[in-house]
Amino acid sequence: METIKITEVGPRDGLQNEKTILSTQDKFEFVTRLVESGAKHIELTSFVRKDRIPQMGDASELAAMVLPKFGSQVHFSCLTPNPKGYEAALASGFKEVAVFTATSESFTKKNINMTVLESFSSFQPIFDNANRDGIKVRGYISTVVSCPYEGKIEPSKTLEVAERLLEAGAYEISLGETIGVAVPTEIEALLEVILKKIPSSLINCHFHDTYGMAIANIKQALTMGIRSFDSSAGGLGGCPYAKGAAGNVATEDLVYFLTKEGYETGINLDSLVKVSQLMETKLNRYLNSRTYIAKKNVG
Amino acid sequence: METIKITEVGPRDGLQNEKTILSTQDKFEFVTRLVESGAKHIELTSFVRKDRIPQMGDASELAAMVLPKFGSQVHFSCLTPNPKGYEAALASGFKEVAVFTATSESFTKKNINMTVLESFSSFQPIFDNANRDGIKVRGYISTVVSCPYEGKIEPSKTLEVAERLLEAGAYEISLGETIGVAVPTEIEALLEVILKKIPSSLINCHFHDTYGMAIANIKQALTMGIRSFDSSAGGLGGCPYAKGAAGNVATEDLVYFLTKEGYETGINLDSLVKVSQLMETKLNRYLNSRTYIAKKNVG
Repeated sequence: METIKITEVGPRDGLQNEKTILSTQDKFEFVTRLVESGAKHIELTSFVRKDRIPQMGDASELAAMVLPKFGSQVHFSCLTPNPKGYEAALASGFKEVAVFTATSESFTKKNINMTVLESFSSFQPIFDNANRDGIKVRGYISTVVSCPYEGKIEPSKTLEVAERLLEAGAYEISLGETIGVAVPTEIEALLEVILKKIPSSLINCHFHDTYGMAIANIKQALTMGIRSFDSSAGGLGGCPYAKGAAGNVATEDLVYFLTKEGYETGINLDSLVKVSQLMETKLNRYLNSRTYIAKKNVG
Repeated sequence: METIKITEVGPRDGLQNEKTILSTQDKFEFVTRLVESGAKHIELTSFVRKDRIPQMGDASELAAMVLPKFGSQVHFSCLTPNPKGYEAALASGFKEVAVFTATSESFTKKNINMTVLESFSSFQPIFDNANRDGIKVRGYISTVVSCPYEGKIEPSKTLEVAERLLEAGAYEISLGETIGVAVPTEIEALLEVILKKIPSSLINCHFHDTYGMAIANIKQALTMGIRSFDSSAGGLGGCPYAKGAAGNVATEDLVYFLTKEGYETGINLDSLVKVSQLMETKLNRYLNSRTYIAKKNVG
């Protein structure tokens, strides 16, 4: 069976979009249980300003608990928006960091207060230092199909940004369909343009399930050769653009889908469901992954 | 743009699986709002024993309110499990009825207390009378991919049942993936067998979103030529086999998907969202269609 790389983004993309701020100890327990469930790639945290994103305020402390214990068996990454964040990530022992930009000028401006071009200049020192330090860099691109401010984004624009990130030294490009509005024909149109220039092995897809289209989009990407996807346990996190709506595609839904389609994920679904049950308790809210709910109630 | 036939099953398959029993007046309001939103095919009720399924106990009363008002502009159907139910449906003014069986002996036994073969004998008088009366008959087949008691069902078994229903006089076969466990490769395998013998124009797909696979399965069926799908407003109804889990694919998710994929449905999504909001109030529970939730909160 062919193996799919799943990057569990619950601890970062998930928790960053939850109202309840977990203690570092709770996060450690979450990550421990994810590792026990078979997660092999985990986006752990983000080195950002604590006053801006308090959910990620304990990045160094969390890394100090997690990396010595699990760093040899699991790939951990973290978001580094600037060289200062990169240095903190390096000091914390990360072997992989991620930089992020978007295809849309308005989104990049609102999200990181830069133009897309400026975001590249700001990354360059991170790529230079990472190259020197032997650290892998992942490049996130947000709003690859549609932007909440600009609407439809041309695939050629996404390709341009992806190529620049690869030239700068990224080892993988994560295509983020940030607002979860895309349908399979749009993913097909995007990937047709991307895959003419970039091998599928360098591309990851990061889908949100806001309108319930994530699994259909993943099927489309899978058909076109993509073998790397992001997801969050239980569908943790939400959509900042639609209160109460679904955010990242749930790892349970993804693992259920991939396993039944004949792929290997390395993740034990029953064990993962128990992790999400723990998170429901800690966050004091119901998680809305379809597979999670069905499994939780059927056993 | 190509048009897709959507059969709205909320008033029957949806409400039958809700704990709260609505008044006939509330059901009439529901159906009125569905019609105003553009629904053209509505499964209205079921002529069953009131002591067995109290949610459908007002079939004749509801029909008497709905059919004279909307019967000329919308196709209404109802489930008729036996000749007695058929006579009641005919007396109520229906021009279309539906009979149901399954591919699995265990399921048919538990569900309608017959073998699959016996279910055919029991339908024959309905088909005979419908033929005499000029009434259309739709044939539902449950558990087309998997049975909660028997597990995996062979596509050839579903084909056999579908062919018998067509020979008996059904104008359309609805393939029901009753427990919502199937993934696209299974739908592909099923439809490959079915469509070798039966034209796609005679096949409807009825998917449940229990594990979040419904839209991906619909995309698969669409790719293979299916142009008729069942769904329920807001995802009304649930899964009798997993408490709290999703049931029928939500009409909102289906309409969102089809519209963005370039198909015509005739249904106004914003208007439909308001119908589901009304139903949330009447049923006193949150509906869990992804598109519904996103639309409700974004506007």
